[in-house]
Amino acid sequence: MIQLADARRILAAAEKKAEEIGQPMNVAVVDAGGNLVAFERMENAWLGSIDISQKKAWTSRAFDITTKDLGANSQSGDQFFGIHASNDGKVMIFAGGIPIKKDGKVVGAIGVSGGSGAQDHAVAEAGVAAY
Amino acid sequence: MIQLADARRILAAAEKKAEEIGQPMNVAVVDAGGNLVAFERMENAWLGSIDISQKKAWTSRAFDITTKDLGANSQSGDQFFGIHASNDGKVMIFAGGIPIKKDGKVVGAIGVSGGSGAQDHAVAEAGVAAY
Amino acid sequence: MIQLADARRILAAAEKKAEEIGQPMNVAVVDAGGNLVAFERMENAWLGSIDISQKKAWTSRAFDITTKDLGANSQSGDQFFGIHASNDGKVMIFAGGIPIKKDGKVVGAIGVSGGSGAQDHAVAEAGVAAY
Amino acid sequence: MIQLADARRILAAAEKKAEEIGQPMNVAVVDAGGNLVAFERMENAWLGSIDISQKKAWTSRAFDITTKDLGANSQSGDQFFGIHASNDGKVMIFAGGIPIKKDGKVVGAIGVSGGSGAQDHAVAEAGVAAY
Repeated sequence: MIQLADARRILAAAEKKAEEIGQPMNVAVVDAGGNLVAFERMENAWLGSIDISQKKAWTSRAFDITTKDLGANSQSGDQFFGIHASNDGKVMIFAGGIPIKKDGKVVGAIGVSGGSGAQDHAVAEAGVAAY
Repeated sequence: MIQLADARRILAAAEKKAEEIGQPMNVAVVDAGGNLVAFERMENAWLGSIDISQKKAWTSRAFDITTKDLGANSQSGDQFFGIHASNDGKVMIFAGGIPIKKDGKVVGAIGVSGGSGAQDHAVAEAGVAAY
Repeated sequence: MIQLADARRILAAAEKKAEEIGQPMNVAVVDAGGNLVAFERMENAWLGSIDISQKKAWTSRAFDITTKDLGANSQSGDQFFGIHASNDGKVMIFAGGIPIKKDGKVVGAIGVSGGSGAQDHAVAEAGVAAY
Repeated sequence: MIQLADARRILAAAEKKAEEIGQPMNVAVVDAGGNLVAFERMENAWLGSIDISQKKAWTSRAFDITTKDLGANSQSGDQFFGIHASNDGKVMIFAGGIPIKKDGKVVGAIGVSGGSGAQDHAVAEAGVAAY
């Protein structure tokens, strides 16, 4: 189970990456139950991404998949098209959410929002690597 | 009218199929009124599918159609595109929901979520067959 | 962590009690993350209690307290008055929800709805006793 | 304007107080715009308070008042009774939220949830003192 100390380490690594690429981010970490453990908004990061980062983290845990990969199956004509309307709008289907695993089992997830999809995903990867 | 004893039999058959294909599932059964009768989440099944399985069941009863067939008419450009935004987000338009009939009349529905569209539909069919 | 087999045992014991007192019930069990594991609506149980039973279970896990005791602190003038407006309306403040503990730690909860507060609480207690 | 570095200092002071009184807490800080800057859930803190702590912080900034004082005017029969139903349920009317001021001007707020009203308020005060 991801606890606060883990989440802080993950946030720090993600934010370090965000600084390197010069894009302020919102970063959220949820535990195995999909419940928020920690969140930080960097200076000048988008306000609209407070919600998105948290929902990306939730989505990645809820379906044990990156939001990037989920999105690739959720466009019009795809097998999961319409999934973004489920769960009271909590499902995000664009890059920035990644499950966090331990011994092959998903124990939580990170969600990043504040830049392009590629930037969000890269920052999330940096966070995951710190666990 | 589907009652609890029927729903349990349907769930058991669906879960047996889920075990056979090795994919843990969320399974829900609604009655003729579209109201939930029973729900079960198998060990390690996706958390995000708790909601989706119930909404697939509701959708199949609400429109007396499989969610797979409804989805085939609800992609961008199709006659029902946008229907997933109706009913406060309760309409699911991807495979896994199937109406349950008795003497040609819809008496309820099953909704399955936890794998690919094809897997969800197959597990739902196994559930229906047990009624 | 409460799994499906545990939840079924809890539901069965709760429903047995409901039958004894002659009041059909809706019964829900959530795990440590507050996520639904299983739900059953007995024949002729109230439709409006499908939602309430699930939210009572969630509430008992979310605050590690019975909804009866939470309610006793949430009336007008009490220290938690207004808590029922939090969490997007998921907080139930009347009897029927009880946390489920293992080795002193809350691992899930049961929620029962379909009768008077006293009946709901008694049925929930019967469910907890089966864990 | 409260920035992330300020919020971290406030969270740390609040959590130190929470540890002293032996009650794990959820702590949130919002800026002058009422938007979340940082949030942390301590180990074993209530899941239902993730939402409440954030809404207490928002409420304190939204009305430039402690939620304890707002609550004192919002019970049944009081001048603001019913305010908890406004703003899509974001208004919390029990202790734990305190505005943060600089030169007499409100620049943000802290929200704490996880214990009794008195505990939440005391932990929030410790956080404010660190600014």
